[in-house]
Amino acid sequence: MKIGVVSSGHTKFGKLNEDIGELMYTACKQAIENINIGTDKIDAIYISNFSSSFSGQSHLSSLLASKLSVNKEITRVESACASGGLAIKEATLAILSGLYDTVLVVGVEKMSSKPAEDAISVLATSGSEFERQHGATFPSLYALVAQRYCFEYKVEQKYLAKIAVKNHRNAIDNPLAQFHKKITINEVLNSPVIASPLKLLDCSPLSDGAAAVILCRQDRTAEFTDDPVFLVGIGHDTETINFYQRSDLATMPTVVNASAKAFEMANVKPADIDVAEVHDCFTIAELLQLEDLGFCRKGKAKDIIDTFPINPDGGLKAKGHPIGATGVSQVVEIFHQLRREAGRRQVKNAKTGLCCNIGGVGSSCVVSIFSR
Amino acid sequence: MKIGVVSSGHTKFGKLNEDIGELMYTACKQAIENINIGTDKIDAIYISNFSSSFSGQSHLSSLLASKLSVNKEITRVESACASGGLAIKEATLAILSGLYDTVLVVGVEKMSSKPAEDAISVLATSGSEFERQHGATFPSLYALVAQRYCFEYKVEQKYLAKIAVKNHRNAIDNPLAQFHKKITINEVLNSPVIASPLKLLDCSPLSDGAAAVILCRQDRTAEFTDDPVFLVGIGHDTETINFYQRSDLATMPTVVNASAKAFEMANVKPADIDVAEVHDCFTIAELLQLEDLGFCRKGKAKDIIDTFPINPDGGLKAKGHPIGATGVSQVVEIFHQLRREAGRRQVKNAKTGLCCNIGGVGSSCVVSIFSR
Repeated sequence: MKIGVVSSGHTKFGKLNEDIGELMYTACKQAIENINIGTDKIDAIYISNFSSSFSGQSHLSSLLASKLSVNKEITRVESACASGGLAIKEATLAILSGLYDTVLVVGVEKMSSKPAEDAISVLATSGSEFERQHGATFPSLYALVAQRYCFEYKVEQKYLAKIAVKNHRNAIDNPLAQFHKKITINEVLNSPVIASPLKLLDCSPLSDGAAAVILCRQDRTAEFTDDPVFLVGIGHDTETINFYQRSDLATMPTVVNASAKAFEMANVKPADIDVAEVHDCFTIAELLQLEDLGFCRKGKAKDIIDTFPINPDGGLKAKGHPIGATGVSQVVEIFHQLRREAGRRQVKNAKTGLCCNIGGVGSSCVVSIFSR
Repeated sequence: MKIGVVSSGHTKFGKLNEDIGELMYTACKQAIENINIGTDKIDAIYISNFSSSFSGQSHLSSLLASKLSVNKEITRVESACASGGLAIKEATLAILSGLYDTVLVVGVEKMSSKPAEDAISVLATSGSEFERQHGATFPSLYALVAQRYCFEYKVEQKYLAKIAVKNHRNAIDNPLAQFHKKITINEVLNSPVIASPLKLLDCSPLSDGAAAVILCRQDRTAEFTDDPVFLVGIGHDTETINFYQRSDLATMPTVVNASAKAFEMANVKPADIDVAEVHDCFTIAELLQLEDLGFCRKGKAKDIIDTFPINPDGGLKAKGHPIGATGVSQVVEIFHQLRREAGRRQVKNAKTGLCCNIGGVGSSCVVSIFSR
């Protein structure tokens, strides 16, 4: 399996003035214009968006048809915060089906139209209703994960803080990131407690933004670019929405399962990955994924924070986390990294990259692997 | 292209006590148990659901994983009221990709948790924001379509009423339908005006419900059933969400385009169709689709209402219209019709069937064709 990635588009992430339609359109237009094609070259479009409750707009497929002035086969997919990775997967299957040669994927979310409290409630709809009724929000669930992980593997809280510090440092070199502000371990540890042990600076922000990529049949990349990247493996898994059913809070089985499928399909090992984008909605999530993806043994992620290039674009923490856009934005970053066009944040000699996009507390996950 | 349809499940439609998870689960369980398999035989699941604003629950992929106690590749797709047809299409592409052999598709909506006024507002989010701000709801937009159509083709309002009368009559023989009540043309014409010329009895109801089918690779149907049906063509189109951009209100271009693709893929003509399920969210929509699908010339649908078997299950009007379930429910009905197991509503000698599922005022559409 080999699918070409031939172009990308990406808006700034943050609190933006544009509405959801304009955000989608901007990212799509960039991706299309970057390779000087017309919309007639695009056979189908996949949209990733989490919830119409943020924007008040559903039927985004039809909205995008308006913006692009096209009649086209357009599909929206959703799996909470893993929606972007899932749209990449659906576009991949669509090309493999033989029905399409060239597919545009765009992820978008417009979260700032709502007050923050309302946004938190919208996010909570992707968790278990039973647990929600008892007050569980995502910060509190991830806090339970962090408590258990730090106890189980004797990891000090400063290592959570190190994730935030590193991702904020990386975002300095990403002009499209929401935050351009270096922070220190002490600032993280002394920021307001959200749900112990997670502090404000352990948490990703509410964001607006959109990201897009164009995928095509591997034998047609030359029509679009001299410098394609290839999607060589993709894995997906979904499991129970009930947090109380987890037998081990310090691991995410869907990450283990989805990455195993992706590695097998790509015929590469974790040690072959030169750069990775992982889903650091909370700092603890990055630690867990480094281990569940197989980059190190359980409890040892703290030892590779400074040595392994993870989230060079600033990650969800500092680049921002417009839910539906995130999984596509990860792919855009790996596309740039493998093409050696990531500027000051370029990871040297990056030839193979990985994206890990999760939904809920990892109750859904898509992992994709790219090579040059 | 040929995909097997080997099983189905279907809850009652109407105002039900079950929550969204129970509805999904019930339809899936029936489909699985009807062919005596375990969930291990299902490679992936596609969920069709319109809006989490009805149920307060997003991330349905993960909720369904809980209900079925599985780790599985589960994807939700949405395109307003065409979500069900779109899920069938995505499942088809997924099988054609070679990645999966057997895919479960379930459509679901739980609309009765909200007061009717709120439900109308949620439905309106699938239209143009600009038009919504000026007060346009779907009944009012379809009323404009009806005004124009009746003027253009000199069609009397009693023919709209005839659609409702026929679909209510058909629903009598469908035990799962929301309404089991014969109505007369005069009752329709004298029911309260919703948006002239549409009366209350021209409109489909708010409904809860779920429907499921199991699709598989054509060469594996024998493992599941001696009596498979085959999906032989599927077409999809999406166009502008802005009603004001339509050049002709009396036709739906996406229906014309999607059906042309489906007919070509299936290598059949409109005259070959023995039974069809069309999307009668309002009576006018059924008249338009009969023409745009090519069953008769423009303005002539009124002449075939009594002679061509359309919506034998009662249609959206009388069977009910739980948004995300509708497109899948249409396929369930054609599955039963082609297997000659539709009981008192069986269409004689039905060998080829068609489903037409639209979103918005036809701004998205999926058409599928089945044969025995």
